[in-house]
Amino acid sequence: MKNIAIVGLGLMGGSFAKAFIKYTNNNIFVYDIDKKSLEDGKNFGIREILNLEDLSKMDLTIICLNPNIIMNFVKENHKYFKNTVMDIAGVKNEVYPLIKSFESEGSFIYKSIHPMAGREIYGFKSSIDDLYKDASMIYVDELNEEEVFLFKSIGFSKFVKASCEVHDKMISFTSQLCHVISNAYILNDKSLNYDGFAAGSLKDMTRVAKINEKLWSELFLENRKFLLEDIDILIDNLKNIKNCLIYNDRKSLEDILLKGSNIRKKMW
Amino acid sequence: MKNIAIVGLGLMGGSFAKAFIKYTNNNIFVYDIDKKSLEDGKNFGIREILNLEDLSKMDLTIICLNPNIIMNFVKENHKYFKNTVMDIAGVKNEVYPLIKSFESEGSFIYKSIHPMAGREIYGFKSSIDDLYKDASMIYVDELNEEEVFLFKSIGFSKFVKASCEVHDKMISFTSQLCHVISNAYILNDKSLNYDGFAAGSLKDMTRVAKINEKLWSELFLENRKFLLEDIDILIDNLKNIKNCLIYNDRKSLEDILLKGSNIRKKMW
Repeated sequence: MKNIAIVGLGLMGGSFAKAFIKYTNNNIFVYDIDKKSLEDGKNFGIREILNLEDLSKMDLTIICLNPNIIMNFVKENHKYFKNTVMDIAGVKNEVYPLIKSFESEGSFIYKSIHPMAGREIYGFKSSIDDLYKDASMIYVDELNEEEVFLFKSIGFSKFVKASCEVHDKMISFTSQLCHVISNAYILNDKSLNYDGFAAGSLKDMTRVAKINEKLWSELFLENRKFLLEDIDILIDNLKNIKNCLIYNDRKSLEDILLKGSNIRKKMW
Repeated sequence: MKNIAIVGLGLMGGSFAKAFIKYTNNNIFVYDIDKKSLEDGKNFGIREILNLEDLSKMDLTIICLNPNIIMNFVKENHKYFKNTVMDIAGVKNEVYPLIKSFESEGSFIYKSIHPMAGREIYGFKSSIDDLYKDASMIYVDELNEEEVFLFKSIGFSKFVKASCEVHDKMISFTSQLCHVISNAYILNDKSLNYDGFAAGSLKDMTRVAKINEKLWSELFLENRKFLLEDIDILIDNLKNIKNCLIYNDRKSLEDILLKGSNIRKKMW
């Protein structure tokens, strides 16, 4: 039985806490500045960390905050870190080197992870013990057998190692661009007149337009190099389709759609 | 007990046929040039129309073909039409006036409909008796009580009247643009490396990239006036987000995302 601390009891941290309590027999401690979530958490068996010095008693600490808040938290509290400390930041390029720099002082081992799961609703109230069921875990630093077992026990079914650079580059396309497009799509005067005119595609296309604007603005801006590249690729693709429409070029349009269709069939 | 003819035994027509057989006690006849589908259809109780003259014995004929094929079919066979004839074309601006012009000869009543349902797989083999469960029916011409009852009995739960112009304008946004974006999204070299880096958003975003390229090219081109407008709105929205990223403008980015998020929350 280990002591696991979750810092930040939002959607991701709350789901970790609920899942560890349901599926493992570890002691789960939580630090959060939101007292309401902590009170709610107690009903699930979560124990509160009242004094940040107690982080030094933890076998594993997982920091589940927005990237900038992770960095501030680590700057102020790394002196209490012991054993293994993980962060779940959705963009690694700024967070990773910062925490790594404190690791060299020798009091803790840093392992950066990114659980590929989420919901379009937020906060501890939206957290669920099965958020990570069948999810993929991206990890930057080698996980040991015990850690893999821990994550598997709460549902993770795939583990992918990636450098910070590869992580950020791929996440731009597999997640961030979806959120950008979904939002850009909905900003059309027709949106609020959709009722009765839509089948499933509009609903799916715009699902993640429901977004935590503060978290995602931060993620987009910290990853803007890759995200701008992906937005430009998409705009170029749209211009190609536009040209087919403008010049009534059915053959080229069919070729484009067939190419996209064939790629998608190889994916799912 | 009525005689209902389905012309075209693909996804939509096949699903109408299966649903009418399962949920009503009408006689269901089908015309298709694909003998394989007709043979399969017989296992579901579908009867084949061997001679197009027999269309004159129908109480209701529903034409479920691609728009251009609908127009060719109607030009050649309208002389056999009797009682009520419907088409399900996904774009109305060319199909509707053509069929309407033959109606004036007096042998049949024309009612144009568009069932808002679909799947990203095609053909009779993909048709299902519950495709229209909880779907919306857009109709151009007033449906009588008996027709509404018929469609309700196979699952339609919403009926929306729209002119051809309003139909085409709304469909551009609620359906066609989704298919355009989904396809434009997938045409990125990163697509085939997605495995392990994606949660649900990429899968939802690109679901309808699996597309029948011949049908959808036709639909896009016939509706290009509205579709080009909607593509341009989306590109403008993307450029606004791009500018926020380029100028590191967090406040404007948050404002855009919050606006989109609030619109989506009003929809679903």
